[in-house]
Amino acid sequence: MKRILGIDIGGTNVKLGIVDEDGRVLVDHIIPTDAADGPEAVAERVARWYGSVRPKFGDAAAAGVDCAGLIDGETGYLYRSPNLPGWDDSKLGKIFEDELALAVTVENDVNSAVWGEYVLGAGRGTGYFVAITLGTGVGGGIVADGQLYRGWQGLAGEIGHHIVSSGGPVCSCGNRGCLEALIRASSIVEAARNAAAESGDSVLEGKTDLTVEEVSIAAAGGDAAAVRALEETGRILGTGLANIVHILNPEVIAIGGGISAAGDLILEPARRSMKEKLMGDILGAVKVVPAQLGNMASFLGVSMLAVEALGERPEV
Amino acid sequence: MKRILGIDIGGTNVKLGIVDEDGRVLVDHIIPTDAADGPEAVAERVARWYGSVRPKFGDAAAAGVDCAGLIDGETGYLYRSPNLPGWDDSKLGKIFEDELALAVTVENDVNSAVWGEYVLGAGRGTGYFVAITLGTGVGGGIVADGQLYRGWQGLAGEIGHHIVSSGGPVCSCGNRGCLEALIRASSIVEAARNAAAESGDSVLEGKTDLTVEEVSIAAAGGDAAAVRALEETGRILGTGLANIVHILNPEVIAIGGGISAAGDLILEPARRSMKEKLMGDILGAVKVVPAQLGNMASFLGVSMLAVEALGERPEV
Repeated sequence: MKRILGIDIGGTNVKLGIVDEDGRVLVDHIIPTDAADGPEAVAERVARWYGSVRPKFGDAAAAGVDCAGLIDGETGYLYRSPNLPGWDDSKLGKIFEDELALAVTVENDVNSAVWGEYVLGAGRGTGYFVAITLGTGVGGGIVADGQLYRGWQGLAGEIGHHIVSSGGPVCSCGNRGCLEALIRASSIVEAARNAAAESGDSVLEGKTDLTVEEVSIAAAGGDAAAVRALEETGRILGTGLANIVHILNPEVIAIGGGISAAGDLILEPARRSMKEKLMGDILGAVKVVPAQLGNMASFLGVSMLAVEALGERPEV
Repeated sequence: MKRILGIDIGGTNVKLGIVDEDGRVLVDHIIPTDAADGPEAVAERVARWYGSVRPKFGDAAAAGVDCAGLIDGETGYLYRSPNLPGWDDSKLGKIFEDELALAVTVENDVNSAVWGEYVLGAGRGTGYFVAITLGTGVGGGIVADGQLYRGWQGLAGEIGHHIVSSGGPVCSCGNRGCLEALIRASSIVEAARNAAAESGDSVLEGKTDLTVEEVSIAAAGGDAAAVRALEETGRILGTGLANIVHILNPEVIAIGGGISAAGDLILEPARRSMKEKLMGDILGAVKVVPAQLGNMASFLGVSMLAVEALGERPEV
């Protein structure tokens, strides 16, 4: 069975490992990114680690590299990266190919995560799949007819920045009423703080550095204000989900990211709110489920994209 | 060059004709639908017309049939049709195949129209394309990577029923704040009537049976209230367009339907409003253009889908 060298480059750490064609991780490892050294230095460190495990785990047939940012998957070109300063306008694919002497597939982290969930996680066995990540921001990606939907410029899937409430609260992108503006972590915390202040008997009352995790724990423990805040978040998420279903008609939507730890406290109101807004029961057959791969999604996904790419290359 | 028998079934009339592989209409004709007679009777009438033109125009290699409703394009099954009473749950493809002795492709009218615009109209030469129809309702369809995007159940593209203004005006679907609720013909007329009443010097003031066409004519003639109503419509359409661009990243969006006759009076404010809401100039490279095929779009589109299907069938 063929092996892939998977390389998931974050702003702080690089997750790397050897993965087989079925997505089994044979060995993995974390190294600091030290992005300021540039992509060549990171590629060199990855090559060194690969060299050290090769005697035991054998040769990789290809490599997959992902990071955040605007990437042309066809050419492996990184236009812009929000969390890798100095890496803008670099031939990321070429740099890793030269260093590793392997065919390299490059994709952004969100598309990689979606593909991971599609092949190995919540989207297995479906043809039309959407993944949404809830956290500091709200991201997303689309699989259509078994293929990653990238769009004309490779920029599709910005589900967090579709407007569900014209004239609503200001978003990080400068617009008003984006889905992200309404359900990002900071908005949930604010909703919980307001609900707690109103209720007068919430465990969250007066807490300053409140996090979504604390809101979730309080809600799980039955705190009414926390439950209300998550329900409200779920209700708005449900509007976004209904929009996605009307436009894309997916079979499965997976919800991941830090906020998804709240589980059914958010997902149940989201499902209810979505179904209320769908035209016809038949569309309501869509399954809204938790993502399954957690923070391994991008790493596994880009490795599986490298497997796909192997099939597209002529045998030498 | 191969020929296709195109059959576009509306609630009142059936448009039918012989079209060549390049979309040239060799001959066409209109017959009344008389839907109450059932699909078999319509297929028989179509077959009779086909028989009458065959000596002159030659044999068709296949046929394409479209109508409004929920259709499974794979099997040619019509689940539900809003404007063909009694046709629900019929094997539309099989009925026409038996009657015509031709391979038959069946698709709904909206997807057919999108495919027509994609192959022969405003979407030619692109890979990622969206068409939106503005009229009594607001419809849409998607082409992704050169293929019609149908979705899991073939129900994708309900762009008119995505919510852009939570809690906004009630839509025909029962929800609030759908794009359709805000920019359908009746909403435009209402906006124009309100603007006219406010202005006090509009040619539209006091008109009772106002139509979008009259609003457009008044706006083209410089009537300020009419211009304002169309600008407001364009502005909201722009929010919907920005959402489509963020989710789907198309190269071209074509706007058709009765309302599109207002042209740049709606499209210019729509483009401006869209660009204000897009993250990054690069997404703003999308072209928002008028549709080109008018009421021939479905007829031509389903004919071109039949051409596609020819390529997928083994030669006999």
